[in-house]
Amino acid sequence: MPDNCDAENDLSGRREFIRRTTGIFVGGATVGSTVALLPATKAEAADKGLTAETRSLPEKSLIRPGDTILFQGDSITDASRSRDAQNQENAQAQMGSGYAWLAASSLLVDYPAANLKIYNRGISGNKVFQLNERWKVDCVDLQPDVLSILIGVNDYWHNKVGDYKGTIETYATDYRKLLERTHKELPDVKLVLCEPFLAVCGNVDATWLPTFQEFSEVAHKLAEEFHATWVPFHAMIQRASQVALPEVWAKDGVHPSADGASLMAHTWLRAVGE
Amino acid sequence: MPDNCDAENDLSGRREFIRRTTGIFVGGATVGSTVALLPATKAEAADKGLTAETRSLPEKSLIRPGDTILFQGDSITDASRSRDAQNQENAQAQMGSGYAWLAASSLLVDYPAANLKIYNRGISGNKVFQLNERWKVDCVDLQPDVLSILIGVNDYWHNKVGDYKGTIETYATDYRKLLERTHKELPDVKLVLCEPFLAVCGNVDATWLPTFQEFSEVAHKLAEEFHATWVPFHAMIQRASQVALPEVWAKDGVHPSADGASLMAHTWLRAVGE
Repeated sequence: MPDNCDAENDLSGRREFIRRTTGIFVGGATVGSTVALLPATKAEAADKGLTAETRSLPEKSLIRPGDTILFQGDSITDASRSRDAQNQENAQAQMGSGYAWLAASSLLVDYPAANLKIYNRGISGNKVFQLNERWKVDCVDLQPDVLSILIGVNDYWHNKVGDYKGTIETYATDYRKLLERTHKELPDVKLVLCEPFLAVCGNVDATWLPTFQEFSEVAHKLAEEFHATWVPFHAMIQRASQVALPEVWAKDGVHPSADGASLMAHTWLRAVGE
Repeated sequence: MPDNCDAENDLSGRREFIRRTTGIFVGGATVGSTVALLPATKAEAADKGLTAETRSLPEKSLIRPGDTILFQGDSITDASRSRDAQNQENAQAQMGSGYAWLAASSLLVDYPAANLKIYNRGISGNKVFQLNERWKVDCVDLQPDVLSILIGVNDYWHNKVGDYKGTIETYATDYRKLLERTHKELPDVKLVLCEPFLAVCGNVDATWLPTFQEFSEVAHKLAEEFHATWVPFHAMIQRASQVALPEVWAKDGVHPSADGASLMAHTWLRAVGE
Protein backbone atom coordinates (compact mmCIF):
# COMPACT_ATOMS: atom_id res chain seq x y z
CA MET A 1 0.00 0.00 0.00
CA PRO A 2 1.68 3.25 -1.06
CA ASP A 3 2.02 6.41 0.95
CA ASN A 4 -0.34 9.10 -0.01
CA CYS A 5 -0.52 12.68 1.06
CA ASP A 6 -2.28 15.80 0.13
CA ALA A 7 -2.43 19.42 0.96
CA GLU A 8 -5.81 20.66 2.08
CA ASN A 9 -7.04 24.16 2.34
CA ASP A 10 -10.46 25.53 3.04
CA LEU A 11 -12.02 28.32 1.06
CA SER A 12 -11.24 31.09 3.50
CA GLY A 13 -7.58 30.12 3.61
CA ARG A 14 -7.80 29.64 7.38
CA ARG A 15 -6.14 26.30 7.28
CA GLU A 16 -3.42 24.75 5.20
CA PHE A 17 -1.75 21.52 6.14
CA ILE A 18 -0.70 18.12 4.99
CA ARG A 19 -2.71 15.07 5.75
CA ARG A 20 -0.48 12.08 5.47
CA THR A 21 -1.55 8.51 5.86
CA THR A 22 0.66 5.50 5.45
CA GLY A 23 -1.93 2.87 4.75
CA ILE A 24 -1.70 1.89 8.43
CA PHE A 25 -4.60 2.66 10.71
CA VAL A 26 -3.11 5.74 12.33
CA GLY A 27 -6.08 7.34 14.03
CA GLY A 28 -7.85 6.36 17.21
CA ALA A 29 -11.14 7.58 15.85
CA THR A 30 -13.79 5.04 15.12
CA VAL A 31 -16.17 5.56 12.26
CA GLY A 32 -19.89 5.14 12.50
CA SER A 33 -23.04 7.06 13.02
CA THR A 34 -21.41 9.70 15.19
CA VAL A 35 -18.20 10.07 13.25
CA ALA A 36 -18.53 13.80 12.70
CA LEU A 37 -18.52 14.34 16.44
CA LEU A 38 -15.54 12.16 17.29
CA PRO A 39 -12.07 13.40 18.23
CA ALA A 40 -9.99 14.83 15.41
CA THR A 41 -7.17 12.95 13.72
CA LYS A 42 -3.63 14.20 14.13
CA ALA A 43 -3.94 16.23 10.95
CA GLU A 44 -7.15 17.80 12.14
CA ALA A 45 -5.54 18.61 15.47
CA ALA A 46 -2.70 20.30 13.63
CA ASP A 47 -5.33 22.22 11.71
CA LYS A 48 -6.56 23.76 14.92
CA GLY A 49 -3.14 25.34 15.30
CA LEU A 50 -3.35 26.69 11.75
CA THR A 51 -0.10 25.08 10.70
CA ALA A 52 1.10 25.99 7.24
CA GLU A 53 2.85 22.88 5.99
CA THR A 54 2.52 22.14 2.30
CA ARG A 55 3.77 19.37 0.08
CA SER A 56 7.28 19.81 -1.32
CA LEU A 57 8.42 19.20 -4.87
CA PRO A 58 10.02 15.74 -5.11
CA GLU A 59 13.80 15.58 -4.96
CA LYS A 60 13.91 14.07 -8.45
CA SER A 61 11.88 16.89 -9.99
CA LEU A 62 13.56 19.12 -12.52
CA ILE A 63 11.47 21.94 -11.08
CA ARG A 64 12.67 23.66 -7.92
CA PRO A 65 10.84 26.14 -5.66
CA GLY A 66 10.83 29.66 -7.06
CA ASP A 67 11.39 28.52 -10.63
CA THR A 68 10.08 30.45 -13.60
CA ILE A 69 8.76 27.97 -16.16
CA LEU A 70 8.23 28.94 -19.79
CA PHE A 71 6.32 26.92 -22.37
CA GLN A 72 7.25 27.73 -25.96
CA GLY A 73 5.97 26.42 -29.25
CA ASP A 74 3.26 26.65 -31.88
CA SER A 75 -0.55 26.36 -31.87
CA ILE A 76 -0.49 23.23 -29.73
CA THR A 77 1.21 25.19 -26.96
CA ASP A 78 -0.62 28.46 -27.73
CA ALA A 79 -4.07 26.87 -27.30
CA SER A 80 -5.90 30.21 -27.59
CA ARG A 81 -3.98 31.95 -24.81
CA SER A 82 -4.79 35.63 -24.32
CA ARG A 83 -2.13 38.06 -25.60
CA ASP A 84 -3.56 40.75 -23.31
CA ALA A 85 -2.84 38.54 -20.30
CA GLN A 86 0.59 37.38 -21.41
CA ASN A 87 2.49 38.98 -18.54
CA GLN A 88 0.15 37.63 -15.86
CA GLU A 89 2.12 34.71 -14.51
CA ASN A 90 0.08 31.58 -13.74
CA ALA A 91 -3.21 33.10 -14.96
CA GLN A 92 -5.45 30.73 -16.86
CA ALA A 93 -6.11 33.21 -19.68
CA GLN A 94 -2.37 33.67 -20.11
CA MET A 95 -1.79 29.90 -20.22
CA GLY A 96 -4.47 29.01 -22.82
CA SER A 97 -6.47 25.79 -22.68
CA GLY A 98 -3.97 23.15 -23.76
CA TYR A 99 -1.35 20.85 -22.26
CA ALA A 100 0.69 23.78 -20.96
CA TRP A 101 -2.24 24.98 -18.85
CA LEU A 102 -3.11 21.49 -17.62
CA ALA A 103 0.50 20.77 -16.65
CA ALA A 104 0.94 24.23 -15.10
CA SER A 105 -2.28 24.09 -13.13
CA SER A 106 -1.40 20.65 -11.76
CA LEU A 107 1.89 22.08 -10.51
CA LEU A 108 0.20 25.13 -9.02
CA VAL A 109 -2.47 23.01 -7.29
CA ASP A 110 0.05 20.47 -6.01
CA TYR A 111 2.70 22.90 -4.81
CA PRO A 112 1.05 26.16 -3.74
CA ALA A 113 4.01 27.09 -1.57
CA ALA A 114 6.61 26.51 -4.29
CA ASN A 115 6.22 30.03 -5.65
CA LEU A 116 6.33 28.92 -9.27
CA LYS A 117 5.91 31.51 -12.01
CA ILE A 118 4.60 29.95 -15.20
CA TYR A 119 4.27 31.48 -18.66
CA ASN A 120 3.08 30.34 -22.06
CA ARG A 121 4.42 32.10 -25.14
CA GLY A 122 3.49 29.60 -27.83
CA ILE A 123 2.26 31.19 -31.08
CA SER A 124 0.00 29.42 -33.53
CA GLY A 125 1.64 28.64 -36.87
CA ASN A 126 5.20 29.03 -35.63
CA LYS A 127 8.12 27.14 -37.07
CA VAL A 128 11.50 27.01 -35.36
CA PHE A 129 12.93 30.00 -37.26
CA GLN A 130 10.07 32.11 -35.89
CA LEU A 131 11.01 31.18 -32.35
CA ASN A 132 14.47 32.50 -33.17
CA GLU A 133 13.00 35.79 -34.41
CA ARG A 134 11.16 36.46 -31.17
CA TRP A 135 13.50 34.72 -28.72
CA LYS A 136 14.75 37.81 -26.91
CA VAL A 137 11.32 39.14 -25.99
CA ASP A 138 9.51 35.84 -25.64
CA CYS A 139 12.19 33.80 -23.91
CA VAL A 140 15.44 35.45 -22.78
CA ASP A 141 13.79 38.51 -21.26
CA LEU A 142 11.59 36.25 -19.10
CA GLN A 143 14.74 34.60 -17.63
CA PRO A 144 13.17 31.15 -17.33
CA ASP A 145 14.69 28.52 -15.05
CA VAL A 146 12.84 25.79 -16.93
CA LEU A 147 12.24 26.14 -20.67
CA SER A 148 9.95 23.69 -22.46
CA ILE A 149 9.88 23.77 -26.26
CA LEU A 150 7.49 21.93 -28.58
CA ILE A 151 8.18 22.83 -32.19
CA GLY A 152 8.35 20.99 -35.50
CA VAL A 153 4.97 20.02 -36.84
CA ASN A 154 4.65 23.20 -38.91
CA ASP A 155 8.26 22.88 -40.11
CA TYR A 156 7.14 19.61 -41.66
CA TRP A 157 3.52 20.33 -42.49
CA HIS A 158 3.88 23.78 -44.07
CA ASN A 159 6.50 22.40 -46.42
CA LYS A 160 4.26 19.49 -47.32
CA VAL A 161 1.03 21.37 -47.90
CA GLY A 162 2.04 25.02 -48.25
CA ASP A 163 4.69 27.23 -49.73
CA TYR A 164 7.26 26.91 -46.94
CA LYS A 165 10.60 25.90 -48.43
CA GLY A 166 12.29 24.66 -45.26
CA THR A 167 13.36 21.01 -45.09
CA ILE A 168 14.47 18.60 -42.39
CA GLU A 169 17.94 20.15 -42.73
CA THR A 170 16.48 23.63 -42.16
CA TYR A 171 14.73 22.36 -39.06
CA ALA A 172 17.90 20.76 -37.69
CA THR A 173 20.04 23.82 -38.45
CA ASP A 174 17.55 26.33 -37.10
CA TYR A 175 16.79 24.29 -33.98
CA ARG A 176 20.50 23.86 -33.24
CA LYS A 177 20.98 27.61 -33.65
CA LEU A 178 18.11 28.28 -31.24
CA LEU A 179 19.51 25.93 -28.62
CA GLU A 180 23.09 27.18 -28.96
CA ARG A 181 21.85 30.71 -28.50
CA THR A 182 19.74 29.65 -25.54
CA HIS A 183 22.71 27.88 -23.96
CA LYS A 184 24.77 31.05 -24.37
CA GLU A 185 22.18 33.56 -23.18
CA LEU A 186 20.59 31.41 -20.47
CA PRO A 187 23.49 29.16 -19.40
CA ASP A 188 21.71 27.72 -16.35
CA VAL A 189 18.33 27.07 -17.95
CA LYS A 190 16.90 23.59 -17.55
CA LEU A 191 15.77 22.54 -21.01
CA VAL A 192 12.78 20.36 -21.76
CA LEU A 193 12.40 19.36 -25.41
CA CYS A 194 9.09 17.90 -26.50
CA GLU A 195 8.73 15.49 -29.38
CA PRO A 196 6.62 16.89 -32.24
CA PHE A 197 3.78 14.51 -33.04
CA LEU A 198 1.08 13.51 -35.50
CA ALA A 199 -1.94 11.27 -35.00
CA VAL A 200 -2.98 9.31 -38.07
CA CYS A 201 -6.46 10.72 -38.62
CA GLY A 202 -8.14 13.88 -39.88
CA ASN A 203 -5.75 15.65 -42.23
CA VAL A 204 -2.97 13.13 -41.62
CA ASP A 205 -2.45 9.72 -43.19
CA ALA A 206 0.15 7.08 -42.47
CA THR A 207 2.26 8.07 -45.49
CA TRP A 208 3.21 11.23 -43.57
CA LEU A 209 4.93 9.33 -40.81
CA PRO A 210 8.27 8.16 -42.18
CA THR A 211 9.39 11.66 -43.17
CA PHE A 212 7.80 13.25 -40.11
CA GLN A 213 9.63 10.78 -37.88
CA GLU A 214 12.87 12.39 -39.02
CA PHE A 215 11.77 15.63 -37.36
CA SER A 216 11.18 13.74 -34.11
CA GLU A 217 14.62 12.20 -34.41
CA VAL A 218 16.27 15.56 -34.94
CA ALA A 219 14.56 16.89 -31.82
CA HIS A 220 15.47 13.76 -29.83
CA LYS A 221 19.14 13.93 -30.77
CA LEU A 222 19.26 17.64 -29.95
CA ALA A 223 17.71 16.81 -26.57
CA GLU A 224 20.52 14.36 -25.91
CA GLU A 225 23.22 16.73 -27.10
CA PHE A 226 21.93 19.66 -25.04
CA HIS A 227 21.25 17.46 -21.96
CA ALA A 228 17.56 18.25 -22.13
CA THR A 229 14.71 16.33 -20.57
CA TRP A 230 12.85 14.57 -23.38
CA VAL A 231 9.06 14.41 -23.56
CA PRO A 232 8.01 11.64 -25.97
CA PHE A 233 4.73 13.02 -27.33
CA HIS A 234 4.83 11.25 -30.70
CA ALA A 235 5.48 7.90 -29.04
CA MET A 236 2.69 8.70 -26.58
CA ILE A 237 0.18 9.50 -29.34
CA GLN A 238 1.01 6.34 -31.30
CA ARG A 239 0.53 4.27 -28.15
CA ALA A 240 -2.66 6.17 -27.29
CA SER A 241 -3.95 5.42 -30.80
CA GLN A 242 -3.89 1.75 -29.86
CA VAL A 243 -5.87 2.44 -26.68
CA ALA A 244 -8.56 4.51 -28.44
CA LEU A 245 -9.07 5.87 -31.94
CA PRO A 246 -6.52 8.53 -32.88
CA GLU A 247 -9.42 10.98 -33.33
CA VAL A 248 -10.00 10.77 -29.57
CA TRP A 249 -6.60 12.37 -29.01
CA ALA A 250 -6.35 14.80 -31.96
CA LYS A 251 -9.33 15.02 -34.29
CA ASP A 252 -7.50 16.68 -37.18
CA GLY A 253 -4.33 14.69 -36.55
CA VAL A 254 -2.40 17.73 -35.34
CA HIS A 255 -4.27 19.61 -32.61
CA PRO A 256 -5.00 17.71 -29.41
CA SER A 257 -8.50 17.26 -28.02
CA ALA A 258 -9.18 17.79 -24.33
CA ASP A 259 -8.30 14.11 -23.81
CA GLY A 260 -5.10 14.55 -25.82
CA ALA A 261 -4.11 17.66 -23.89
CA SER A 262 -4.72 15.84 -20.60
CA LEU A 263 -2.53 12.94 -21.68
CA MET A 264 0.18 15.36 -22.84
CA ALA A 265 0.15 17.16 -19.48
CA HIS A 266 0.47 13.79 -17.72
CA THR A 267 3.41 12.81 -19.93
CA TRP A 268 5.10 16.20 -19.55
CA LEU A 269 4.80 16.13 -15.76
CA ARG A 270 6.19 12.61 -15.56
CA ALA A 271 9.08 13.49 -17.84
CA VAL A 272 10.14 16.37 -15.57
CA GLY A 273 9.94 14.08 -12.56
CA GLU A 274 6.98 15.73 -10.90
CA MET B 1 18.46 16.37 -14.32
CA PRO B 2 16.01 13.53 -13.79
CA ASP B 3 15.89 10.24 -15.60
CA ASN B 4 13.24 10.02 -18.19
CA CYS B 5 12.08 7.09 -20.20
CA ASP B 6 9.33 6.17 -22.50
CA ALA B 7 7.99 3.32 -24.45
CA GLU B 8 7.75 3.87 -28.16
CA ASN B 9 5.84 1.93 -30.69
CA ASP B 10 5.20 2.54 -34.35
CA LEU B 11 1.81 2.27 -35.96
CA SER B 12 2.29 -1.20 -37.37
CA GLY B 13 3.40 -2.58 -34.03
CA ARG B 14 6.71 -3.67 -35.51
CA ARG B 15 8.73 -2.11 -32.77
CA GLU B 16 8.28 -1.65 -29.09
CA PHE B 17 11.11 -0.61 -26.84
CA ILE B 18 12.24 1.72 -24.16
CA ARG B 19 14.27 4.77 -24.91
CA ARG B 20 16.02 5.79 -21.77
CA THR B 21 18.21 8.86 -21.40
CA THR B 22 19.87 9.95 -18.22
CA GLY B 23 20.45 13.59 -19.02
CA ILE B 24 24.03 12.71 -19.90
CA PHE B 25 25.11 12.89 -23.50
CA VAL B 26 24.91 9.19 -24.25
CA GLY B 27 25.03 9.04 -28.00
CA GLY B 28 27.95 9.48 -30.33
CA ALA B 29 25.69 10.92 -32.98
CA THR B 30 26.13 14.55 -33.85
CA VAL B 31 23.19 16.61 -34.85
CA GLY B 32 23.09 18.92 -37.81
CA SER B 33 22.09 19.08 -41.38
CA THR B 34 22.60 15.38 -42.00
CA VAL B 35 21.18 14.14 -38.73
CA ALA B 36 18.61 11.88 -40.26
CA LEU B 37 21.33 9.92 -42.02
CA LEU B 38 23.64 9.47 -39.04
CA PRO B 39 24.17 6.25 -37.08
CA ALA B 40 21.32 5.24 -34.80
CA THR B 41 21.38 5.72 -31.06
CA LYS B 42 21.50 2.69 -28.80
CA ALA B 43 17.72 2.68 -28.56
CA GLU B 44 17.36 2.82 -32.30
CA ALA B 45 19.85 0.00 -32.68
CA ALA B 46 17.79 -2.07 -30.26
CA ASP B 47 14.80 -1.26 -32.39
CA LYS B 48 16.43 -2.97 -35.33
CA GLY B 49 16.35 -6.16 -33.30
CA LEU B 50 12.66 -5.60 -32.60
CA THR B 51 13.11 -5.87 -28.86
CA ALA B 52 9.94 -5.86 -26.84
CA GLU B 53 10.89 -4.07 -23.63
CA THR B 54 8.27 -1.85 -22.11
CA ARG B 55 8.20 0.37 -19.07
CA SER B 56 7.27 -1.37 -15.83
CA LEU B 57 4.86 -0.13 -13.20
CA PRO B 58 6.81 1.57 -10.40
CA GLU B 59 7.52 -0.52 -7.30
CA LYS B 60 5.55 1.91 -5.17
CA SER B 61 2.45 1.64 -7.34
CA LEU B 62 -0.67 0.13 -5.82
CA ILE B 63 -1.33 -1.33 -9.28
CA ARG B 64 0.43 -4.53 -10.30
CA PRO B 65 0.65 -6.18 -13.72
CA GLY B 66 -2.46 -8.15 -14.59
CA ASP B 67 -4.68 -6.22 -12.18
CA THR B 68 -8.36 -5.67 -12.82
CA ILE B 69 -9.22 -2.11 -11.83
CA LEU B 70 -12.81 -1.05 -11.16
CA PHE B 71 -14.04 2.53 -10.84
CA GLN B 72 -17.29 2.87 -8.92
CA GLY B 73 -19.42 5.87 -8.07
CA ASP B 74 -22.06 8.28 -9.29
CA SER B 75 -22.41 10.64 -12.30
CA ILE B 76 -18.88 12.00 -11.87
CA THR B 77 -17.50 8.51 -12.40
CA ASP B 78 -20.21 7.48 -14.90
CA ALA B 79 -19.43 10.40 -17.25
CA SER B 80 -21.78 9.13 -19.98
CA ARG B 81 -20.25 5.68 -20.25
CA SER B 82 -22.01 3.27 -22.60
CA ARG B 83 -24.05 0.54 -20.88
CA ASP B 84 -23.88 -1.52 -24.08
CA ALA B 85 -20.09 -1.55 -23.85
CA GLN B 86 -19.89 -2.19 -20.13
CA ASN B 87 -18.20 -5.58 -20.40
CA GLN B 88 -15.57 -4.37 -22.89
CA GLU B 89 -12.56 -3.90 -20.64
CA ASN B 90 -10.45 -0.80 -21.36
CA ALA B 91 -12.75 0.43 -24.16
CA GLN B 92 -13.26 4.18 -24.24
CA ALA B 93 -17.05 3.89 -24.62
CA GLN B 94 -17.16 1.63 -21.58
CA MET B 95 -15.05 4.08 -19.54
CA GLY B 96 -17.02 7.27 -20.30
CA SER B 97 -15.39 10.66 -20.69
CA GLY B 98 -14.45 11.60 -17.14
CA TYR B 99 -11.58 11.19 -14.69
CA ALA B 100 -11.89 7.39 -14.74
CA TRP B 101 -11.23 7.33 -18.48
CA LEU B 102 -8.39 9.84 -18.29
CA ALA B 103 -6.70 7.94 -15.46
CA ALA B 104 -7.31 4.58 -17.13
CA SER B 105 -6.05 5.68 -20.52
CA SER B 106 -2.89 7.12 -18.98
CA LEU B 107 -2.23 3.73 -17.38
CA LEU B 108 -2.96 1.88 -20.62
CA VAL B 109 -0.71 4.21 -22.64
CA ASP B 110 2.09 4.12 -20.09
CA TYR B 111 2.07 0.39 -19.39
CA PRO B 112 0.86 -1.45 -22.50
CA ALA B 113 2.53 -4.67 -21.37
CA ALA B 114 0.99 -4.63 -17.89
CA ASN B 115 -2.15 -6.40 -19.08
CA LEU B 116 -4.47 -4.20 -17.04
CA LYS B 117 -8.21 -4.71 -17.30
CA ILE B 118 -10.12 -1.57 -16.42
CA TYR B 119 -13.85 -1.11 -15.88
CA ASN B 120 -16.15 1.75 -14.99
CA ARG B 121 -19.48 0.97 -13.33
CA GLY B 122 -20.39 4.39 -11.97
CA ILE B 123 -24.10 5.24 -12.28
CA SER B 124 -25.40 8.78 -12.38
CA GLY B 125 -27.45 9.78 -9.35
CA ASN B 126 -26.19 6.98 -7.11
CA LYS B 127 -25.92 7.28 -3.37
CA VAL B 128 -23.99 4.79 -1.27
CA PHE B 129 -27.02 2.58 -0.52
CA GLN B 130 -27.47 2.14 -4.28
CA LEU B 131 -23.93 0.83 -4.59
CA ASN B 132 -24.88 -1.74 -1.96
CA GLU B 133 -27.93 -2.79 -3.97
CA ARG B 134 -25.92 -3.54 -7.10
CA TRP B 135 -22.62 -4.58 -5.50
CA LYS B 136 -22.70 -8.25 -6.48
CA VAL B 137 -23.17 -7.65 -10.20
CA ASP B 138 -21.28 -4.38 -10.49
CA CYS B 139 -18.36 -5.14 -8.19
CA VAL B 140 -17.91 -8.60 -6.67
CA ASP B 141 -18.61 -10.49 -9.88
CA LEU B 142 -15.89 -8.48 -11.65
CA GLN B 143 -13.34 -9.65 -9.03
CA PRO B 144 -11.37 -6.41 -9.04
CA ASP B 145 -7.83 -6.29 -7.67
CA VAL B 146 -8.08 -2.51 -7.30
CA LEU B 147 -11.42 -0.93 -6.40
CA SER B 148 -11.81 2.85 -6.54
CA ILE B 149 -14.97 4.37 -5.05
CA LEU B 150 -16.14 7.99 -5.30
CA ILE B 151 -19.51 8.39 -3.60
CA GLY B 152 -21.15 10.96 -1.34
CA VAL B 153 -22.14 14.11 -3.16
CA ASN B 154 -25.67 12.82 -3.85
CA ASP B 155 -26.00 11.50 -0.28
CA TYR B 156 -25.57 15.13 0.77
CA TRP B 157 -27.15 16.98 -2.14
CA HIS B 158 -30.32 14.93 -2.58
CA ASN B 159 -31.11 15.39 1.09
CA LYS B 160 -30.52 19.12 0.81
CA VAL B 161 -32.48 19.81 -2.36
CA GLY B 162 -34.68 16.76 -2.87
CA ASP B 163 -36.76 14.25 -0.97
CA TYR B 164 -33.96 11.91 0.09
CA LYS B 165 -34.16 11.37 3.86
CA GLY B 166 -30.64 10.04 4.40
CA THR B 167 -28.31 12.01 6.70
CA ILE B 168 -24.62 12.02 7.47
CA GLU B 169 -25.29 9.08 9.82
CA THR B 170 -26.98 7.18 6.99
CA TYR B 171 -23.96 7.82 4.79
CA ALA B 172 -21.53 6.65 7.44
CA THR B 173 -23.56 3.54 8.27
CA ASP B 174 -24.22 2.57 4.65
CA TYR B 175 -20.63 3.22 3.58
CA ARG B 176 -19.26 1.14 6.46
CA LYS B 177 -21.65 -1.67 5.51
CA LEU B 178 -20.45 -1.51 1.90
CA LEU B 179 -16.80 -1.66 2.92
CA GLU B 180 -17.30 -4.45 5.47
CA ARG B 181 -19.07 -6.49 2.84
CA THR B 182 -16.35 -5.72 0.32
CA HIS B 183 -13.66 -6.75 2.80
CA LYS B 184 -15.50 -10.03 3.37
CA GLU B 185 -16.28 -10.87 -0.25
CA LEU B 186 -13.07 -9.50 -1.79
CA PRO B 187 -10.55 -9.95 1.05
CA ASP B 188 -7.51 -9.14 -1.09
CA VAL B 189 -8.90 -6.12 -2.92
CA LYS B 190 -6.80 -2.95 -2.84
CA LEU B 191 -9.19 -0.17 -1.89
CA VAL B 192 -8.99 3.39 -3.18
CA LEU B 193 -11.46 5.79 -1.56
CA CYS B 194 -11.97 9.16 -3.22
CA GLU B 195 -13.03 12.25 -1.34
CA PRO B 196 -16.43 13.59 -2.47
CA PHE B 197 -16.13 17.22 -3.49
CA LEU B 198 -17.93 20.45 -4.27
CA ALA B 199 -16.68 23.57 -6.03
CA VAL B 200 -18.23 26.82 -4.81
CA CYS B 201 -19.93 27.97 -8.01
CA GLY B 202 -22.95 27.12 -10.13
CA ASN B 203 -25.55 25.48 -7.92
CA VAL B 204 -23.26 25.48 -4.89
CA ASP B 205 -22.56 28.28 -2.43
CA ALA B 206 -20.14 28.44 0.48
CA THR B 207 -22.87 27.76 3.03
CA TRP B 208 -22.96 24.17 1.75
CA LEU B 209 -19.41 23.45 2.78
CA PRO B 210 -19.41 22.97 6.55
CA THR B 211 -22.04 20.21 6.43
CA PHE B 212 -20.63 18.73 3.23
CA GLN B 213 -17.19 18.59 4.81
CA GLU B 214 -18.57 16.05 7.29
CA PHE B 215 -19.19 13.66 4.38
CA SER B 216 -15.57 14.05 3.31
CA GLU B 217 -14.47 13.35 6.86
CA VAL B 218 -16.57 10.19 7.07
CA ALA B 219 -15.01 8.95 3.85
CA HIS B 220 -11.52 9.88 5.04
CA LYS B 221 -11.87 8.07 8.35
CA LEU B 222 -13.27 5.00 6.61
CA ALA B 223 -10.26 5.11 4.29
CA GLU B 224 -7.95 5.03 7.29
CA GLU B 225 -9.87 2.28 9.03
CA PHE B 226 -10.03 0.07 5.94
CA HIS B 227 -6.38 0.80 5.01
CA ALA B 228 -7.46 2.36 1.73
CA THR B 229 -5.50 4.73 -0.44
CA TRP B 230 -7.07 8.17 -0.09
CA VAL B 231 -7.63 10.52 -3.05
CA PRO B 232 -8.18 14.06 -1.78
CA PHE B 233 -10.50 15.47 -4.46
CA HIS B 234 -12.24 18.05 -2.27
CA ALA B 235 -8.92 19.43 -1.07
CA MET B 236 -7.74 19.44 -4.69
CA ILE B 237 -10.78 21.38 -5.92
CA GLN B 238 -10.49 23.99 -3.16
CA ARG B 239 -6.83 24.47 -4.01
CA ALA B 240 -7.62 24.56 -7.72
CA SER B 241 -10.24 27.24 -7.05
CA GLN B 242 -7.42 29.47 -5.89
CA VAL B 243 -5.47 28.81 -9.11
CA ALA B 244 -8.43 29.55 -11.42
CA LEU B 245 -12.12 30.27 -10.94
CA PRO B 246 -14.03 27.27 -9.54
CA GLU B 247 -16.16 27.34 -12.72
CA VAL B 248 -13.06 26.28 -14.66
CA TRP B 249 -13.04 22.98 -12.76
CA ALA B 250 -16.77 22.28 -12.31
CA LYS B 251 -19.20 24.75 -13.87
CA ASP B 252 -22.23 23.68 -11.85
CA GLY B 253 -20.18 23.08 -8.72
CA VAL B 254 -20.63 19.31 -8.87
CA HIS B 255 -19.73 17.89 -12.30
CA PRO B 256 -16.14 18.39 -13.44
CA SER B 257 -15.23 20.12 -16.68
CA ALA B 258 -12.60 18.63 -18.99
CA ASP B 259 -10.00 20.59 -17.00
CA GLY B 260 -11.45 19.29 -13.74
CA ALA B 261 -11.49 15.71 -14.98
CA SER B 262 -7.86 16.03 -16.10
CA LEU B 263 -6.82 17.33 -12.69
CA MET B 264 -8.76 14.53 -10.98
CA ALA B 265 -7.03 11.89 -13.11
CA HIS B 266 -3.67 13.42 -12.22
CA THR B 267 -4.52 13.38 -8.52
CA TRP B 268 -5.89 9.83 -8.66
CA LEU B 269 -2.80 8.53 -10.44
CA ARG B 270 -0.48 10.20 -7.98
CA ALA B 271 -2.44 8.85 -5.02
CA VAL B 272 -2.06 5.26 -6.25
CA GLY B 273 1.65 5.81 -6.72
CA GLU B 274 1.69 5.60 -10.50
